[in-house]
Amino acid sequence: MNGATYRKIEEHMLACMGDAAHDKEHVYRVLYNALEIAASERDVDYDVLISACLLHDIGRKEQLRDPSLCHAQVGGDMAHEFLLGMGLDAESAAHVKECIASHRFRKNSPPKSLEAKILFDADKLDVTGAIGIARTLVYNGVLNRPLYTLENGMPSDGDGDARPSFFQEYCFKLKNIYDGFLTKRGKEIAEERRASAQNFYAGLLGEVRQSHAYGKDALRELIKE
Amino acid sequence: MNGATYRKIEEHMLACMGDAAHDKEHVYRVLYNALEIAASERDVDYDVLISACLLHDIGRKEQLRDPSLCHAQVGGDMAHEFLLGMGLDAESAAHVKECIASHRFRKNSPPKSLEAKILFDADKLDVTGAIGIARTLVYNGVLNRPLYTLENGMPSDGDGDARPSFFQEYCFKLKNIYDGFLTKRGKEIAEERRASAQNFYAGLLGEVRQSHAYGKDALRELIKE
Repeated sequence: MNGATYRKIEEHMLACMGDAAHDKEHVYRVLYNALEIAASERDVDYDVLISACLLHDIGRKEQLRDPSLCHAQVGGDMAHEFLLGMGLDAESAAHVKECIASHRFRKNSPPKSLEAKILFDADKLDVTGAIGIARTLVYNGVLNRPLYTLENGMPSDGDGDARPSFFQEYCFKLKNIYDGFLTKRGKEIAEERRASAQNFYAGLLGEVRQSHAYGKDALRELIKE
Repeated sequence: MNGATYRKIEEHMLACMGDAAHDKEHVYRVLYNALEIAASERDVDYDVLISACLLHDIGRKEQLRDPSLCHAQVGGDMAHEFLLGMGLDAESAAHVKECIASHRFRKNSPPKSLEAKILFDADKLDVTGAIGIARTLVYNGVLNRPLYTLENGMPSDGDGDARPSFFQEYCFKLKNIYDGFLTKRGKEIAEERRASAQNFYAGLLGEVRQSHAYGKDALRELIKE
């Protein structure tokens, strides 16, 4: 890919992302993760891969506007149209569309092409380790969700919990993300990061349970009915 | 303190906090931390301590409305008025006001009474360890701040950084919180939690720097000018 093409796609991505700083950071991490994964694979179409990484989340705003839409599906269509407009050949544009449409976690139709698998893993890596924890907590703040909910006055660990919280999201999504990687290097990086996330979850749960365990009993002694 | 009085103060706290789930959680952790610290101290006035913990952040909304106000100062006045209205004696109400007014980190006038020192430490404990990291990241999301900023295309570690980010906040505040505790048990609990925060920061910085270090060079090879 030449510099002018890269910058044109990058500019389009930035325009679609608005000024949401963390979304833009995410896109570059996904691109960089993808290039690291790709280095362990053969015959990668880098033009398709780079385009798909840069544009993989441009459908987010549409999904936010109308939650019945899937940002992967919509984003694939948007990227397809944009790239054809830029003069990209039909085959490559359709390939980018396939990558983006199948990049979403928990999707029924799995990624088929090598480039789609690389994007899928590169995007999922951003849900592993400390970065997965950080992004989930930031999102928790945006949604004004609690860190944990209480069960008989003690912080629930989130396992099997129906009420939204950081601990619930950890048990439902973050804890299990390590099993579904499709590339060798993607799986390796994910495993390298796994302990970071586990330690943080265990540490946080320990801290808040310690506070509650001591305080609940102490308070019962002090408050006379 | 009797149960009816506790519940009346608790109700007032909940009304002042609105429905911000994480602020409410914070208040109970501070109360429980304070009771754990108090168990290692002598002659604690528990009625004052419990009242001060429950009400220590009720001035937050006022500060949010007018950032020139200090929530500790305003909250102290609000609590004082509320407790006198409840029929609390003037000395105890003034004591609670002193605790709340001096609880803020980075304040010129340090806490004087034992109960004020306990509240100060109990509140600061919620900035240590994994819970300090979690709360800072959640707040990062509310403010739409980035996790990190870039310096020559690489994530800055935040040290001496003027631009707001999670890493900057870690270096400016979280990293140094462990030095200023005023009670023995407060300092002990803070030290127990220190490694959790350090490991998370180091892990996150390592992950994002690894992505960028590899990706930046790989991209330079692939993009032909």
